[in-house]
Amino acid sequence: MKIALVVGTVVASHKEPNLEGSRLLVLKNVTIEGDVQSDYVVAVDAVSAGVGEYVLYAGGSSARQTAATHNRPVDAVVMAIVDSWEVGGVEKYKK
Amino acid sequence: MKIALVVGTVVASHKEPNLEGSRLLVLKNVTIEGDVQSDYVVAVDAVSAGVGEYVLYAGGSSARQTAATHNRPVDAVVMAIVDSWEVGGVEKYKK
Amino acid sequence: MKIALVVGTVVASHKEPNLEGSRLLVLKNVTIEGDVQSDYVVAVDAVSAGVGEYVLYAGGSSARQTAATHNRPVDAVVMAIVDSWEVGGVEKYKK
Amino acid sequence: MKIALVVGTVVASHKEPNLEGSRLLVLKNVTIEGDVQSDYVVAVDAVSAGVGEYVLYAGGSSARQTAATHNRPVDAVVMAIVDSWEVGGVEKYKK
Amino acid sequence: MKIALVVGTVVASHKEPNLEGSRLLVLKNVTIEGDVQSDYVVAVDAVSAGVGEYVLYAGGSSARQTAATHNRPVDAVVMAIVDSWEVGGVEKYKK
Repeated sequence: MKIALVVGTVVASHKEPNLEGSRLLVLKNVTIEGDVQSDYVVAVDAVSAGVGEYVLYAGGSSARQTAATHNRPVDAVVMAIVDSWEVGGVEKYKK
Repeated sequence: MKIALVVGTVVASHKEPNLEGSRLLVLKNVTIEGDVQSDYVVAVDAVSAGVGEYVLYAGGSSARQTAATHNRPVDAVVMAIVDSWEVGGVEKYKK
Repeated sequence: MKIALVVGTVVASHKEPNLEGSRLLVLKNVTIEGDVQSDYVVAVDAVSAGVGEYVLYAGGSSARQTAATHNRPVDAVVMAIVDSWEVGGVEKYKK
Repeated sequence: MKIALVVGTVVASHKEPNLEGSRLLVLKNVTIEGDVQSDYVVAVDAVSAGVGEYVLYAGGSSARQTAATHNRPVDAVVMAIVDSWEVGGVEKYKK
Repeated sequence: MKIALVVGTVVASHKEPNLEGSRLLVLKNVTIEGDVQSDYVVAVDAVSAGVGEYVLYAGGSSARQTAATHNRPVDAVVMAIVDSWEVGGVEKYKK
């Protein structure tokens, strides 16, 4: 998994039927030092995350292992909201 | 998922039998600011997307989770047409 | 999927038993403008493609969704021979 | 699999229900010469690894093939603690 | 699949129970011209490959499609020993 910042949303009214009701979030990857990067991914929200929150997302077939994404054509899912992380005994982020 | 622009099509008459009838689109990746990039992917169309439309595509095994791609040797699928997206409260694209 | 040029073959007599009979092709990736690149992949041939042909290949678990690769330890398969492709209304390649 | 150094932990109290009890480790990739790199991955711990230990982690669907990760939205798992490795007959690391 | 050179081994006594008995090889990727590169992967050996041999390895879920790796948390497997390969009619390597 990677840590990312939720920065926006995507609207797509015409889509695969089994994607109805999925909330699509724009995520920007974050370095382990907490710096927000320019590359992004669009992920389905499985935990009611909001813009501005730091989250964990999973990719590949693992992205389908939530109630919100089971059997759907989805390759990235937000499956946790991050409270804090630390590296080398130093807290790099705390909500 | 990533956002991409549909820029073209591929014709392949000699192919795996279970790919008959699949429409093959050429996609160029788009940055979250909306800039079209040079790298591309070929994806099966599951939502009747047209050249010039911004779409979402999914990769890996998730690309097989549509009626158009089930059990087929396909690792990318267009599964939504994008109406709009926003980042940081600013609309970056609107159809 | 990506477009690639078949440039060679690999011989491997000592291999997993269920790979017996698989033909192993060396592919070089091709840009969407048709330029052959230096990076390569080894893929199993599912469509009797020949050296010099432009093909489509699929990766990951999707590479196992052909009769030639089902349940085999294969992460890339040639599943179509390309007749032509176009980008922005311009034909970039025609067989 | 890749070799990585366990450098920290992530706390996420709000997450997919089936992730309860999962321990989330921050890993930094290590070159085969033993140099720690800046890129990272967050992985679920399946072997009670501690900060400062060198480990092996697996990604993709293979990350779900442990008791700690079965059927969970997890795309990276620590599945072994490294005792030593050698390259070209030279021991590059020994615990 | 990619061609790689077996350059070493990893020892990990504390690991997922179903990995007992797996032999862990250090592989360095090889260009299609035969040049050994610095990046590496750790793969399970399914064909009794030795240090100094050129091999093919498969990644992702396909790495679990051998007797040595079935249902195990393994994302790379050596599934063939390379005898030779050629590109453009020129033999680049022969054992």
